[in-house]
Order: sequence, then C-alpha cells, then structure tokens
Amino acid sequence: AVLMSVGSFIASAQQLNTDQQAQLNALKTTALQSDLSYQLIESLTTEVGHRLMGSEGDKKSIVWAVNKMKALGFDKVWTEEVTGSYWLRGEAKARIVAPYPHDVVILALGGSIGTSKEGLTAKVAHFETLADLKAAPDNSLNGKIAFVSYQMERHIDGDGYGPAVGTRVGGAVVAAQKGASALIMRSVGTDNNRTAHTGVMRYKDEVKKIPAAALSNPDADLLVNQLKRGEEVSMYLNMTAKTNAEVVATSANVIGEFTGSELPNEIVSLGAHLDSWDVGTGALDDGLGIGMVMAAAHHIGQLPKRPKRTIRVILFAAEEVGLLGAKQYVKAHKDDMNAHVMGAEWDFGIGRIYKMTPGVGAQSLNAVRELAQYLAPMGVALAPENNAKGQSDMSALSDAGMPSINFSPDGSNYFDYHHTENDTLDKVEPEALKVNTAIYTMYAYFAAQAMVDFRK
Amino acid sequence: AVLMSVGSFIASAQQLNTDQQAQLNALKTTALQSDLSYQLIESLTTEVGHRLMGSEGDKKSIVWAVNKMKALGFDKVWTEEVTGSYWLRGEAKARIVAPYPHDVVILALGGSIGTSKEGLTAKVAHFETLADLKAAPDNSLNGKIAFVSYQMERHIDGDGYGPAVGTRVGGAVVAAQKGASALIMRSVGTDNNRTAHTGVMRYKDEVKKIPAAALSNPDADLLVNQLKRGEEVSMYLNMTAKTNAEVVATSANVIGEFTGSELPNEIVSLGAHLDSWDVGTGALDDGLGIGMVMAAAHHIGQLPKRPKRTIRVILFAAEEVGLLGAKQYVKAHKDDMNAHVMGAEWDFGIGRIYKMTPGVGAQSLNAVRELAQYLAPMGVALAPENNAKGQSDMSALSDAGMPSINFSPDGSNYFDYHHTENDTLDKVEPEALKVNTAIYTMYAYFAAQAMVDFRK
Ligand SMILES: [Zn+2]
Ligand SMILES: [Zn+2]
Ligand SMILES: [Zn+2]
Ligand SMILES: [Zn+2]
Repeated sequence: AVLMSVGSFIASAQQLNTDQQAQLNALKTTALQSDLSYQLIESLTTEVGHRLMGSEGDKKSIVWAVNKMKALGFDKVWTEEVTGSYWLRGEAKARIVAPYPHDVVILALGGSIGTSKEGLTAKVAHFETLADLKAAPDNSLNGKIAFVSYQMERHIDGDGYGPAVGTRVGGAVVAAQKGASALIMRSVGTDNNRTAHTGVMRYKDEVKKIPAAALSNPDADLLVNQLKRGEEVSMYLNMTAKTNAEVVATSANVIGEFTGSELPNEIVSLGAHLDSWDVGTGALDDGLGIGMVMAAAHHIGQLPKRPKRTIRVILFAAEEVGLLGAKQYVKAHKDDMNAHVMGAEWDFGIGRIYKMTPGVGAQSLNAVRELAQYLAPMGVALAPENNAKGQSDMSALSDAGMPSINFSPDGSNYFDYHHTENDTLDKVEPEALKVNTAIYTMYAYFAAQAMVDFRK
Repeated sequence: AVLMSVGSFIASAQQLNTDQQAQLNALKTTALQSDLSYQLIESLTTEVGHRLMGSEGDKKSIVWAVNKMKALGFDKVWTEEVTGSYWLRGEAKARIVAPYPHDVVILALGGSIGTSKEGLTAKVAHFETLADLKAAPDNSLNGKIAFVSYQMERHIDGDGYGPAVGTRVGGAVVAAQKGASALIMRSVGTDNNRTAHTGVMRYKDEVKKIPAAALSNPDADLLVNQLKRGEEVSMYLNMTAKTNAEVVATSANVIGEFTGSELPNEIVSLGAHLDSWDVGTGALDDGLGIGMVMAAAHHIGQLPKRPKRTIRVILFAAEEVGLLGAKQYVKAHKDDMNAHVMGAEWDFGIGRIYKMTPGVGAQSLNAVRELAQYLAPMGVALAPENNAKGQSDMSALSDAGMPSINFSPDGSNYFDYHHTENDTLDKVEPEALKVNTAIYTMYAYFAAQAMVDFRK
C-alpha cells in the first residue's frame, strides 16, 4: 500500500513512542514541581559567592560543582584545566569636581588598568556615541577624560546590547588614540540605579592603555545635564585595577554526564558558565544556567533507564573574560566534536522562554517540530528561522559544527542586573525557573531519545 | 422668603464665585502645561546636589532658593537662621568574613559614630525583629554585631515604614544595652537593590554609643541564608562617621510670599524641606516638594490680582536630622501662629495623589467638600476622616494649631528610593509631577480665596 493514512504517517514520523512521550510528560511534572534548580543557585550564591576567573571563589566553585554533580548521581564527573590571566578589580573611585563635588558610582571595566596612585583629575569631553568619539580629531582629547553617554535600549530579545557594547569593548582604544587619559562610559544597562555595569574590555598592543570605567545611568544623566550648561565639568578618577602578570590563573571546565544506554558516544550537551563577575554573586549570570542544566540532567538521570544518548553537562570556566573555557573545550575535543549531536546553553536570565530557534540540518526539522509540539503548551513558539547558534560558550561549539536549539526568554529586564552588584539571589523567580528548567529537561530528553541526525 | 431653592443654597454656600472658579480652572490648565516644577528640581539637583544640614550643598541651596524665589516674582523673600550639629558620613565599609569573604553594601545611619580606625570584626547575632533584640538577655551580645533582619512591607500609603523605622531610630541603644559592639540592620526600604537606606538614629546619654549602619536588602538576604546554615557568620565593619563637635552648623529656613490683596496677615503656607541626605541628590526627598510648592505659588502670583490671603512658601532647613527648621519656625512664629490659617507640605514622592484628608474645624468641612469637588476630576477622593496633620515639617505647625489638608499619593514605590543614593532626577516623572503641582496650586488658591475660618 503506497497510500498511508495521515494518522499513521504522523505516527511513523514521530521520534518519541508512546512510552517515551509518557516519560517526557512525567519529566515535565517532576521539573515543574522540583525546586532543585533554585536550591542549587541558593547553595552556590550563599556558600561560594562570586567566581571571577582565578579568584578564590572560582576555585571553590569547581569543588562545589564536582561535589554537587556526584551528589546528584552523575555517572561520570571530571574537570578539564583552563588557564588565563587573573584580573584584580581593586578599588574604583570617581567624583565630579566641578561644577560641585559629587561622588559618582563607577566600576572598572574587566581588564582595565588603574590610574596612577594619586588618580587623575581632568576635564570631561562628552560624546553621545562611539561613532562621535571616533570622529574626534587626533590629539583633541589630550589630557581629557572621554565620556560616552550612549544609552542602551530595552528590548525583549536584548537587541539593545549589541549597539551599546562596542564602547565597552573597544572604547578605551579609540579614546586613547585621540589622546584621552581615561574613558568613562555610561553603563551598558537598562536600569536607573546608582549601579554600574562591568564587563570585559580590550586593549591593542600598539595603542596606549588608559583606564576605562562604566558610570551608573543616573550619574551619566547628571553629567549630561551639567555638560549641557556649557560650563566646565571635570572629574577625579582613581582606580587600582590591574592584571596580575605574575601568575597564570588556573581554572577548570567541570563536566558531568549520564551515560547513554544505547548510544553512549553520542552526546547531548547542556552548558552554562561557572565563572561570574566579582561584584554580585552571579545568581542570574550564570547561576541560573548552572541550576537549570544540572537539575535537567539530574531529573533525566532519575528515570528507571538512561535515555539512548549521553547527557553531558558542561560548566564552562572563564566565559566572562573571553570564552576561555569554551575555546579550551573545543580545542581539547576537536576529535570528538562530531559526537556532540546537539547542544544548548542557558545564559540569559530569568525571563519566560517564549521561542525556540533551531540550528540543525534541514532533514531534522521535522523532529524539531515534534519537540515544538511538546513545548507549545509551555508557551514556546517555534521560530521560522533555522540558523541558531548556542548561547555564550556553546556558540564556540556551534562554530565547530554542533547543532543547537536556542531558547529565547523575555530578556526585557535582563540588562537591569547584568554584570552589576545587583546580580543576586533575590532576582531569581522560583516559579519562572521551574518552567524554564522543565523546558530544558524536556528538550534534553527529547534530543537524547530522538534517533535523528541533527546535522542532516 | 424662608425657603430657598436647592440651587441657590449651594450657590450661597460656595466659597468661590464664578470668576474665581474660572481662575481656578485657568490655574489648573497653566500648571498642567508648565514644566516649572520639573525645571526647578532639575536645576537644584544639577547645580547644587545634595544638601545635608551644615554641608556646602546646604549653604548653596539657600542661595539657590532665595535667587529662584526672587526670579519667580515673589513679593518678599527672606531667611531665618537654624542651627544644629554637622554630622559627617565619612566612609563605611563592611564585609562578610566567614563563611567566605564578600563585600556588602552598607550606609551609616545619620548621627552614628564610627568604629575605631582599625574597624571591628565580630560574630553576627541575628534577630528577626527589634522586639527579639529587646528580649535578648543583658550581656548576651558582648563582642558581637547585632543584626536585625526585619523587612519593611510595601503599602500604597507607606504604612510599612512605621513598624520598620523603630530599629533605625532606637536599635543601637537596645543593642548596646545587650553588650553589642555594633548594630547592622536591614535597610528600611522596599527595593531589591544593593543600595542601603540611611536615615536618622538616636543615642541615649546613659547608654554606650555603638556604630549603626543599614545593609542593602540583597545583602541582608544573603546574611540570613548564611546564618540559617547554623555555622558561624562574622563580619568586618569600618566606619569613619562622626558628628563634628567643633562647630555649630548654621542653616536657614528660606521663606517667600505673595502678599494677599485683602487679608495680607492671613497666611496659607506651602512647605517642603530644603535639606536632603547626602547620598543621592535629593530629587524625590524633597526636591519634588520644593519644585511643587515654588511652582504653585508662582502660578498664583502670575494672576492679574493677588488672592485675598498671603501665599507663603516655607523651605525648611534640617528636616532630615530632626525637624530642626520646623521647630525653629514654630518657636520664632509662636505669636503669629494664628495667622497661619491653612498649610500643607509635600514630602512624599512622585506617586499620583488619590486622596485628601482634612484636619480642620467642623464648620469648615463644607468648604473642604467644595475644594474636593474641584479636585475630583484629578482623581482625588475626599477621605471621611477629619484628623489630618501636615506632612513632615508641617506636622510641627499642625501641632501648634494650624489647620491642614493632607494629600496622599500612591506611595507604593516611595521606599524603593527613600534615603538612598538612588534618589536622583531620573525618578521624577514629569507628567505625574504636573498633575500633583496642579493639585497643590488649586488647593493653595482655594485656601487663599475661601473666606472660611478653617480653625472653626
Ligand atoms: Zn553569562
Ligand atoms: Zn556575563
Ligand atoms: Zn523628606
Ligand atoms: Zn527624608
């Protein structure tokens, strides 16, 4: 019979059989009822604290993660060394000197040098955008502090970050090329707190290094209003930030897995990053991801039988300072990168997931559609595009050929807290976390059972 | 004719005639279209900054207010000296030492002493409430830091403040009586920022003075979670706060008026406080009030003819440190307190006014009802009670017999910013400010024209 009924066609196309669908539903119920992901974040932030690459907290977090994975019943747990440099934030003080003395809130950008011990006092030269700063004539900023006041826009998908982050990463080089003695920028953030947002910046070998710091939004407003009046505005800046050149910082990717029952060499990988900036406790960035992926794997590992493929959790080191852990992982695993049949990271806050976007081979889109049907009742829509890469660290694995599905949350509020001292446990919403953990659990289970080649 | 029609009865009872009602409506339109109150706040916060009693900013603000009143056409402008002590915040650093080193965010409470130069490190003893602290046995806190973790509740009318503020004002005395070497309290605030809330505290002469500081809400959460685990939690505290005993701080109430055309010796007073805490720029507390009452008086002063009674704006000194300006005002004006026929202050944030509560003689309630009719279209309801006192400073004038009408805003968010470094211009919502300014303008005009004795 060449003709098949529509019903049997769908049935034959399905990746999960009835039993497996029942397991998927049971996993959903388990994840929605469990506060394991929250408990993991609470434990990490309360017992370990921040985890900046090379810090004591970073070292403690590796021990924490290994112990938790063992306690959660992972079949294998191991670490893979990651090395890099250790940047020390030190102290950062800034003060408007004229028109009137006023302390402002800044944070050194990650990687910045400090000022001289005495600090520096200089006139503020204002630019609304990085492009304006680039357009300034050479030497026009000699002896001045360059101030870029561009304000990040709020978007559900975090699209305001891209246009804003260029100043943070590259602004100090441009300012130095114009002769400035320091760069002060409005924080890359959407809040209105006297809280600055840190994040990584870069120097160029051939350009003079100058200190670079982010200013809180209300302080940037004040500066702009003072500058508008046309009279001199000057600032004092004192920063003791430095990279510890004496030592090589050592950290590690922490990896744990539940070994597949039928295809143990095919890996569904769930990622998050174990490091954090040093100003909050890294509850959102990326405690959330750590809690979600460890809990998702654990829930699956509690099933009576392991799924066919291996579920591997990778907690990457040193994401914040340049994806060092991910790069090391890709390097170390280049010969078994093909074994990574599917992977995703969580590194984008507590918003509810509303969309999934695949980045898979065309033939496996039907399987993705099936997964989308299971996730639709959770409010997850399937995007029409098929071009997604993994988030953060996992983008490096995507670049190395790993298929991925990217889950998009409502990111409207993410940049209120991103890279600030406000990144603390209270921002984690337990109910939203349960839903997102359930989605990751269901996704991972599906990917480990679906006998489709996501590369094709 | 003994019988009057209902219509003419109402007409005869009305305080404002048709012309005056037209003027009231014109004032409403003017105030709703004017951004004068915002411009005043912008000017004060941008050009002067904070205004702590005795500081340079305080002195500058007096000059600022006198100049602005003159520029706004006030008929008379003068200052009345207020003296007090000058408290210096200095620096305040705190750090969790165990279970792991973690900087926490604190602010010294206003009036607190500092620690020794080396600071102090001590075990943290946790109390959920001030009552729990009071119940601790004498000497049970010897060598410890007392930590009270009571969390203020959010309420539309700010009712959560009362139960929370007792620890701030009196907690250090209680902690010292039990032998504690310092008091750390969860901030009196409803936000979840790493931002502490300052505010005045008191010592008693017969009790040892110990340093007292407020901790940000997320840091208080972290401490509570660490303490829950039952292991030792200790903190390092270093504060350089002190009261400058060498000098008497001098400030001033700044007073300006538009003289009444018929009853110049009867005063409708509009109050706000000119001082602020030193951590933000005092935009909400009480830049808002300053902008509103100066703009309201100015709008009325622009009418072709002054209203019958005098409109007096009083910008009080040193409210934050104990109503020093208001107390001085009542003392200096005790012989003409009867001339203060009506008065109100604005010192409660940017929320929309939804309610007015009189505190007047029973016979003048009809006049209040008439005012309420004019304000009803602005969303202001008349409360059934008749027991209101003026806000903040004006409560001292109420206590001295001045009738008042209290306007209640939605205060749900007020304590997110109250007494923090987040009290900055960006929190002022220009449209809400126009509405509240219009209400104050209409109220002041009505009180200056209504020929009723509000004391009766
Ligand atoms: Zn991240
Ligand atoms: Zn990050
Ligand atoms: Zn106030
Ligand atoms: Zn206040």
